[in-house]
Amino acid sequence: MDASTPAGTVTVGAYLARRLQQLGVAHLFGLPGDFNLALLDELLADGGLAWVGSANELNAGYAADGYARVRRGVSAVVTTFGVGELSAVNATAGSYAEDVPVVHVVGMPATTAQASGALLHHTLADGDFSHFVRIAAEVSASAVVLRAATAARSIDQALLTAVGTSKPVYLGIPVDVARSLVPAGALARPLRVLRSDADTAAEFARALTAFLDGTAELTVLAGPRLHRRHLEERVRAIAAQPGVAVATQSASKAMLDESHPANLGVYAGAHTTAPATRERVDTADPLVLAGVVLTDLLTGSFTHAFDPGAAVDLQLDHARIAGDVFYGVYLDESLRILEQVLQARELTSAPPAAGPGAPERAAVPQAGDTPLRHAELWPLLQDWLAPGTLLVADAGTAFYGALELTLPDGSDLLGQPVWSSIGYTLPATLGAVLARPERETVLVIGDGAAQLTVQELGRLLTCASALTVIVLNNDGYTVEREIQSPHAVYQDVLAWNWTQLPAALGAPGTATHRVCTGADLVKALAEVRAVPGRPALVEVVLPPDDTPDLLRRIARSLS
Amino acid sequence: MDASTPAGTVTVGAYLARRLQQLGVAHLFGLPGDFNLALLDELLADGGLAWVGSANELNAGYAADGYARVRRGVSAVVTTFGVGELSAVNATAGSYAEDVPVVHVVGMPATTAQASGALLHHTLADGDFSHFVRIAAEVSASAVVLRAATAARSIDQALLTAVGTSKPVYLGIPVDVARSLVPAGALARPLRVLRSDADTAAEFARALTAFLDGTAELTVLAGPRLHRRHLEERVRAIAAQPGVAVATQSASKAMLDESHPANLGVYAGAHTTAPATRERVDTADPLVLAGVVLTDLLTGSFTHAFDPGAAVDLQLDHARIAGDVFYGVYLDESLRILEQVLQARELTSAPPAAGPGAPERAAVPQAGDTPLRHAELWPLLQDWLAPGTLLVADAGTAFYGALELTLPDGSDLLGQPVWSSIGYTLPATLGAVLARPERETVLVIGDGAAQLTVQELGRLLTCASALTVIVLNNDGYTVEREIQSPHAVYQDVLAWNWTQLPAALGAPGTATHRVCTGADLVKALAEVRAVPGRPALVEVVLPPDDTPDLLRRIARSLS
Repeated sequence: MDASTPAGTVTVGAYLARRLQQLGVAHLFGLPGDFNLALLDELLADGGLAWVGSANELNAGYAADGYARVRRGVSAVVTTFGVGELSAVNATAGSYAEDVPVVHVVGMPATTAQASGALLHHTLADGDFSHFVRIAAEVSASAVVLRAATAARSIDQALLTAVGTSKPVYLGIPVDVARSLVPAGALARPLRVLRSDADTAAEFARALTAFLDGTAELTVLAGPRLHRRHLEERVRAIAAQPGVAVATQSASKAMLDESHPANLGVYAGAHTTAPATRERVDTADPLVLAGVVLTDLLTGSFTHAFDPGAAVDLQLDHARIAGDVFYGVYLDESLRILEQVLQARELTSAPPAAGPGAPERAAVPQAGDTPLRHAELWPLLQDWLAPGTLLVADAGTAFYGALELTLPDGSDLLGQPVWSSIGYTLPATLGAVLARPERETVLVIGDGAAQLTVQELGRLLTCASALTVIVLNNDGYTVEREIQSPHAVYQDVLAWNWTQLPAALGAPGTATHRVCTGADLVKALAEVRAVPGRPALVEVVLPPDDTPDLLRRIARSLS
Repeated sequence: MDASTPAGTVTVGAYLARRLQQLGVAHLFGLPGDFNLALLDELLADGGLAWVGSANELNAGYAADGYARVRRGVSAVVTTFGVGELSAVNATAGSYAEDVPVVHVVGMPATTAQASGALLHHTLADGDFSHFVRIAAEVSASAVVLRAATAARSIDQALLTAVGTSKPVYLGIPVDVARSLVPAGALARPLRVLRSDADTAAEFARALTAFLDGTAELTVLAGPRLHRRHLEERVRAIAAQPGVAVATQSASKAMLDESHPANLGVYAGAHTTAPATRERVDTADPLVLAGVVLTDLLTGSFTHAFDPGAAVDLQLDHARIAGDVFYGVYLDESLRILEQVLQARELTSAPPAAGPGAPERAAVPQAGDTPLRHAELWPLLQDWLAPGTLLVADAGTAFYGALELTLPDGSDLLGQPVWSSIGYTLPATLGAVLARPERETVLVIGDGAAQLTVQELGRLLTCASALTVIVLNNDGYTVEREIQSPHAVYQDVLAWNWTQLPAALGAPGTATHRVCTGADLVKALAEVRAVPGRPALVEVVLPPDDTPDLLRRIARSLS
């Protein structure tokens, strides 16, 4: 609010900035463009949002997505009309597919220009200014173009939708609307997540008590939507109850420490690593699905043997017990009720004799002097990972290698196994380190994937204080080679000099290493650990046709 | 067609490949992905299409666009479902806005999976497989998902639409359809551009003869759609008629050699450099608009003083004389008719005494030892450009600096002044050099713009034999600084080491230079010229707040 703003009013841009701050947003991602300069000036005017410029809009969208995931809340990305916003559509679709509430704010031409159908640049030159909001509507929970008279209400509704659905929303803001004035009064009451309906919640509690009557043990499959609501503590509380065991999905691996005695590890149908875990989840009665997503890559290509329709299903905006649906009982509330019911009942069984317990750690091999392969790489990485690490792993060999690790306590795995857009993690890690700058962060990404979004590498390395980027250089798209035609010309990428790249892309302070053997890798990782606070990039050279075992099995099921 | 294909049939993928080849396509752009591997294998099976892998899909789309523009015909880009295709939407929209017939081919999940609504990866996990084709439909002349029974006909119709409208089209091809068999017989009759309706053309000829009766001179404004139909020769033939003068738009600068006596140079309303050119076009009676596009940046923010409604307007699929529209008279035919009418009539006037003639060339200044500015840069570049050059200039300082040049004979300017997506030209140049590998090509692009698409730089430099890339390094988005808030934090980009980048990105054979003064620039350009066949990158350091004069005027009109 500058001196020229009448008392009791605020510009639309400033209103949006305040609302975002009230929701905990401290960084704004994006790029400037002809039609969003006025909007950016208003959004940044009060200094409460730090600007994070990205090299392009796809990367900005991915960064905002990573920020929202790690912050466990909404984030915002600002682009310009047409040329800017359309480059971010893939990022928005990924946010939709994986339940990430990113607010996409687009600076648009003036309302009068739109009404007149002027043939402006950044349009299709057909006088239709609605093509792009219709595109956004396909991948967003709501997509609106603001008008001055209703702008504040539209902003509030969009933000409530983003929070409530945990999906992206789109706000188109014409330049004149960005600067128009709205009453500031509504800002006195911050937006908050709506509470569950008390009567329905009570009904759910009674029904759950009845449903669990007489059961000796309980199996919970914990999915990624729990992360979106920041409910990891509640999962821990449930896991502490006698008779409870918790499997996670790959998208929520290590939500419960993998050393926790109730942790069954990752369940993914036929692609589950531990046979006992697969057996327990598939035969569980009762089975509780909590924030679960049942897509192909999360179910071993739909090889899960349990019946979701017979389970207790706790979702963001409803709970279900077999065929009985309780709308308006939200995930935080349904988990709280589950915990209370368990506490009241005290399941009689101790953990099964075999005990799920911590998965076995593979013995750390002697690091060798022969060309490195995945079978040697991952155990060495696991041995090096510190407790509390945020491990980010790109779709492909990186993610499926990471799935076979036993992560140290306090660690998280961040990947994108539903949308699976390669290259996503590099900019997403930028968002992640801005959301949790103090956290030790390790990004593992293939060379083919990193090429898609590499222009964010410099910004990432200059923004992070405890970051190691591990590039798996296998000359191309190894995951696709596993599916079909491994020697086709389209599987190869141009060979880059990865260790030159940080300096070329503006991060000359980065420590760089190129390793071809296990012994080299161990030495490089030790050097990284020896200089805390200095970002590092380690290029790991691998054969083009080598993958983690798990990925090979998954690729066979896809091909 | 492999050995297993029954006689007289061909797979859908192979059918499409043949059709593309019949239309002159020799290169296929794109990236592989889970759902397009079978399609790619079919498309590449007969060896008639060379694969050009890009680092990401936006770049692949831009490269296909540049290829189509320079080839004066259709091009094709192949991506995978969802995660691939959505990254290319911005490129497709640009092709639509600027009339470039790019065929976007997307490998999709199997028909049965789509019909069952399976929750596959690369979807929004909502069972709806049509989100992305609906997105494509917003920016394409047609968007269809192929079914086996009608695939060949759908392919033919889409290609005819692309050719006829000079707009992008979208073909979604499920994996099962890519491999399904269709009769090969239709391939015996290649698709061709449809001919104008003879009766309507004859009516147009009579009307045009009457309309031009008694006129002493004729002014033609030649626009970019002439390039799309490869009609430059016909424009030259018309310009050779007595009494004819030809102005071009910025998007078709130098379509007629700028030394040609009938060439008036670029017309853009109030942003026209030569006052006599502005006067002649604005007061022309009659005025012929040929393949013209009247958007803001092509008309000096709509400051054109002529009345398009009173002009003769020759468009791709119709001609118009004042209020009388002749549908089905295509641009090649209407130009041919114009030429015939002019030949029959022999306009009486000689070129005006002042003569439009060649624009004056700015005197080449002595190259100085002070920090380089735009006012010094462009004359030095002009002096260095060789005849026959393809000059590619990115939106922003590069394009508007290039507009003030007088290009050597046989040269072309390639830019994107309607869609104006920064970063477009870098991958587009890849397409351009593949379409015309022998041609001397110079790309001028700002640092902020190049950051958006930089991952194609290595591939570009390794594919080109006569290419110079000139990066204007002014620390950010100078065009936006001219519009508003020049010192805002969002105007800056991270400083990269541009001369390290070619080697880091896989093109170590590139000659690199970094210049800060005019004398340095002259020396660097001379060295580039001295080693023909070796690609070069020249980083030109410029002040953040310095722009070509023309851009300053344009930015003021936008702000």
